[in-house]
Amino acid sequence: MKLTYGERSAMAVNSVGKALFQLMEEKKTNLCVAVDVTTAEELLRIAAETGPYICLFKTHVDAVENFTESTAKSLLEIAQKEKFIILEDRKFADIGKTVSLQYGGGPMKIVTWADLVTCHSISGENAIIGLKSASKDLPRGCFLVAEMSSEGNLITPSYTKATLEMAEMHPEFVVGLVTQSIMKETSCGLIQLTPGVRISSGSVHSIFATDGLGQRWSSPEDAVLTRGADIVVVGRGITEARYILHILCEKGHVDEAMVKKTEDY
Amino acid sequence: MKLTYGERSAMAVNSVGKALFQLMEEKKTNLCVAVDVTTAEELLRIAAETGPYICLFKTHVDAVENFTESTAKSLLEIAQKEKFIILEDRKFADIGKTVSLQYGGGPMKIVTWADLVTCHSISGENAIIGLKSASKDLPRGCFLVAEMSSEGNLITPSYTKATLEMAEMHPEFVVGLVTQSIMKETSCGLIQLTPGVRISSGSVHSIFATDGLGQRWSSPEDAVLTRGADIVVVGRGITEARYILHILCEKGHVDEAMVKKTEDY
Repeated sequence: MKLTYGERSAMAVNSVGKALFQLMEEKKTNLCVAVDVTTAEELLRIAAETGPYICLFKTHVDAVENFTESTAKSLLEIAQKEKFIILEDRKFADIGKTVSLQYGGGPMKIVTWADLVTCHSISGENAIIGLKSASKDLPRGCFLVAEMSSEGNLITPSYTKATLEMAEMHPEFVVGLVTQSIMKETSCGLIQLTPGVRISSGSVHSIFATDGLGQRWSSPEDAVLTRGADIVVVGRGITEARYILHILCEKGHVDEAMVKKTEDY
Repeated sequence: MKLTYGERSAMAVNSVGKALFQLMEEKKTNLCVAVDVTTAEELLRIAAETGPYICLFKTHVDAVENFTESTAKSLLEIAQKEKFIILEDRKFADIGKTVSLQYGGGPMKIVTWADLVTCHSISGENAIIGLKSASKDLPRGCFLVAEMSSEGNLITPSYTKATLEMAEMHPEFVVGLVTQSIMKETSCGLIQLTPGVRISSGSVHSIFATDGLGQRWSSPEDAVLTRGADIVVVGRGITEARYILHILCEKGHVDEAMVKKTEDY
């Protein structure tokens, strides 16, 4: 079955998931930038510079020392101007009541500015229900972590399967899955988000490297063509060598991979 | 083998783990209060009120809207006066590099004020190594989450076993395990911390209840005597009905359970 991202948008249940598919189609990009910086200024600079080329902007604001409401406001303005969606990669991993407090409150008030968040399935489906209850009537959703890229991680195939089932049970809030390999049984309305991707300045083929803390990387092409990614998360590959992003987008490698992906359906 | 908490202190590798065992022995308490509040004022009030009766003060500061450096400073002063250890229940659940940034930086600078944090083993041992690298020369440590109490959680016996192995591999930073059942193979230098405990105003026997978001509770006696807890985490049971804490401590139920526990060794 061949389905474009636009067609899959109609199959998504969550409104942010629908919007994300539409952005991917309109902007012809399946790039997500992972922003691992420690100041609000860097965060906003990267948002403005990468904004035109990305569909998704992934943050870890609890590592940003001077993150305030004003930072969130500026980020939302850039997101509206450049048309991208904001994903706070919080990896919620507590019981339902606790994640609802962490999501809705605290110094960062994530629910007020992040369209999407990431959530581990480890504590059970009540984490999703807790997040949803804290989001009230805002258009919000989450990616569930179905697989991880780090060395020695404890996720098993049965854990992944249970996570997919949880996603299918809650399409009103779960927009997709954080994955490392193709999920053939997943509904076409769910989005596969693949981190651990690095844009090499040399070969466009698979590369593997580590950061000395067990993180493993592969290439965008490998992620999309072999591992079924709808969106590739490129972190240090963009922020440490931004020029590569421009070259890649201009040369259309990622667009080409996206087209190949849609032909596979 | 009979071992007192004092004797187990000598078997702990991490300095905060040692200090925690010593506090339990000196203050004759294995109570940890879980503080799920949303303002700094409430957090500090509970610290001052429960301080004399607890060994460990468990926070979720990312749910505290006006948490600042000044809150942390006040909390540290209370901790020093009342002699308890601070555990930020952050449940770190990302790759090594990311958790090191989240722990050491951001608006909350957890490493500067929390003696201990909780960490999931899901991403592999590099999460521990990442936390340790961010703690530099400070006396710091973590509890690894080996089991959860929430309904439908995805932790399996083999996941728990792998977590125990990870703890035994890193006793220089891991002070213990978050558990729901007795871990017979665990080194006596590691501490079992058991959440999901509620002090009933009626019976002191097992009670089971839920919060509508899948959390299940049992009694302190059940946690210590049946499930092998060294420290019981009492959350809403204390903060919603504080008088029970006082009654319980005065009547010595928890002390009694602690004595029975130490006799079991």
